[in-house]
Amino acid sequence: MCSAVTRVKPVQGVLALTLRLRTNTEGSSYAAAGSRRFCPGVSTGVDPLRATTGRYCSGMAQTKGLIFRQLFESQSSTYTYLLADTETKEAVLIDPVLETINRDLKLIHELGLNLKLAVNTHCHADHITSTGLMKKRLVGLKSAISKFSGASADILLSEGDKITFGKHYLTVRETPGHTDGCVTLVSRDQSMAFTGDALLIRGCGRTDFQQGCAKKLFQSIHQKIFTLPDQCLIYPAHDYLGQTVSTVGEERKFNPRLTKSLEEFVNIMNNLNLPKPAKIDISVPANLVCGVHEV
Amino acid sequence: MCSAVTRVKPVQGVLALTLRLRTNTEGSSYAAAGSRRFCPGVSTGVDPLRATTGRYCSGMAQTKGLIFRQLFESQSSTYTYLLADTETKEAVLIDPVLETINRDLKLIHELGLNLKLAVNTHCHADHITSTGLMKKRLVGLKSAISKFSGASADILLSEGDKITFGKHYLTVRETPGHTDGCVTLVSRDQSMAFTGDALLIRGCGRTDFQQGCAKKLFQSIHQKIFTLPDQCLIYPAHDYLGQTVSTVGEERKFNPRLTKSLEEFVNIMNNLNLPKPAKIDISVPANLVCGVHEV
Repeated sequence: MCSAVTRVKPVQGVLALTLRLRTNTEGSSYAAAGSRRFCPGVSTGVDPLRATTGRYCSGMAQTKGLIFRQLFESQSSTYTYLLADTETKEAVLIDPVLETINRDLKLIHELGLNLKLAVNTHCHADHITSTGLMKKRLVGLKSAISKFSGASADILLSEGDKITFGKHYLTVRETPGHTDGCVTLVSRDQSMAFTGDALLIRGCGRTDFQQGCAKKLFQSIHQKIFTLPDQCLIYPAHDYLGQTVSTVGEERKFNPRLTKSLEEFVNIMNNLNLPKPAKIDISVPANLVCGVHEV
Repeated sequence: MCSAVTRVKPVQGVLALTLRLRTNTEGSSYAAAGSRRFCPGVSTGVDPLRATTGRYCSGMAQTKGLIFRQLFESQSSTYTYLLADTETKEAVLIDPVLETINRDLKLIHELGLNLKLAVNTHCHADHITSTGLMKKRLVGLKSAISKFSGASADILLSEGDKITFGKHYLTVRETPGHTDGCVTLVSRDQSMAFTGDALLIRGCGRTDFQQGCAKKLFQSIHQKIFTLPDQCLIYPAHDYLGQTVSTVGEERKFNPRLTKSLEEFVNIMNNLNLPKPAKIDISVPANLVCGVHEV
C-alpha cells in the first residue's frame, strides 16, 4: 500500500510534489503515497535535500538513524544489503539471494523491521533472487528492478527514482553496461552507493552476455559513479576476494580497469575469456520474473 | 620505535601520564613513546576521555576520522580488520591471515597507511596468522597478543592496555574462555568491539580445547562484552553464515547460547561434539610464535 512513486520537481525555487500512479508488468496499479516521510516506496525526480555534511570516514558509513547490514552468500559471492530507518523501522533489501532467505527473514524479524521493498540492482545471471519467495512470506512486500531489465516486478525503476524508507532514501542511477537494466542506488547524503555488478572493488561486471557492452559500462561508471564524492562508500553486489567495501576515490585511483582509457577498457573487457556462469540458464529465466517467480 | 606502553592514571582529578619500558618475549626492550597522540602503540590504564556521544546507528560505525575495513578469508571464515587514523595514517590490523597477506599489504599500501601493530585476539587454532611474515615485509611493524596466550609477540597485552593509532585507540578487555589468552578490543567511544572468538554473531567460540572453559567464557561475555552499550557494534573473528556485524543489544537479546543461564550454557557448550579443527596441529604451534614465526 505504501510502495509509491512520487515526482519531486523544483519549480521556480519552490518544490512541487506531484503524485502519480504507476502500473506494474502484471497490469495492476498501486496507490501513490500521501506522505513521503513515513512511507517507503519510490519517488522520481530531483533531490532538493541532498545532504553534503562532509562527515565521511573511509570504510564506514555515517548516516544517522540508519540500520545497515551487509550480508554475504558464499556460493555466488553475493552481497545482500539491508537498510532501515531506526525510528520507523521501514526497511529496504538490496539483492537478496534465494539460498539465504531464511537468514535474511530471521534478521528482519529479530530487528523488528517492516520490509517494504526488495530491490534487485539487475537481472542476475549467477544466482536466483529471493524476492519472489520473500513476497509470499512477507505481507505487503513489493519487488523492484530497472524498467530496462526486461524483468517483471511490482515497481520498475527509472533514472532519478527515489526509494524511500522512513527519513532515508536511495536514488536510482541507471548504470547499464553489464546488463541494460543495471542500476546503482545512492544514499541521500551520497555517503553510500550500491553499485550492483557495474562497479566492483578493483573490478567491474563482465560485459560478454545479457546485453553486455563494455563502452556503455565505462561511460556509466565514469558518468554516474565516479562523479560521486571521493569518500562515498562503494558497496558492490559481489566480491570474490573477501573485500567488503571501497570508496569512489579509491576506485578512481586504483581500479585496474577503470583507470584505463575507453579503448583500453573495451579491449580488456573483450578479452577476459571468462567461463559461462554455472547457473545462468536457470538464474536468468527465474530472475526475469523476479518479483513474481514461482519457486 | 613508536610501539609503546603508556599508563594513564587519574590522579586527584588530573591526569598523570607515565611511560615505561616493556620487554618482549625475546628479551629486547623497546622505547616508550613521548607522545600518545601521534604514536601508535599500547598504553595501559583508565580511559578518562571515553566519548559517549550517543551518535550510534545499528550496523555502521560512526567514529570520525577513522579508516575502517572488514576483510574476509574464506577458507577459515576469518575476519581481518584494518583500522587507521585518516590524518596520521597510523594503522592497526586485527587477526590477519597468512593466505590473504598479499591482499592486505596491497590495501595498506594503496591507502597510504603506516601499519604499526598487528594484533591477534588470541592464539588461533583454525588458521595461521600472517603477523610473522608481515613483520618481515613491513619495517617497524610490531606484533601483539595477550600475555595469557602462551604465545610470543613483540607486545604482550593485559587488561586495560590501550592500542593507540593517531587520535584513536582500542582498549584491551581480557575475555578468556575460548582460550586463556582471548581479548576483546573496544574502540575509544565504545561504538565497536572486536570480540575475536569469544562472542560470535548469534554464537560464541568453542570451549573444548586450548584451555577452553565454558564457565569462564560465559562470565567473560557477560562481564566484559554485554556491559558495553547496546548499540556497540560486534565485529567477531569469524562468521560462517555471511553475517558481517551485530550489536551488543542484539546478542544480549538473540544469542541462542548467551541468553541461557550459566548452567544451561555450560551444558550446551559441553555437548557440541564438534570435529577437531582441520588445521589445529599446524596452526597452534605456528601461532604460539605469532610475532616471530618462520614461514
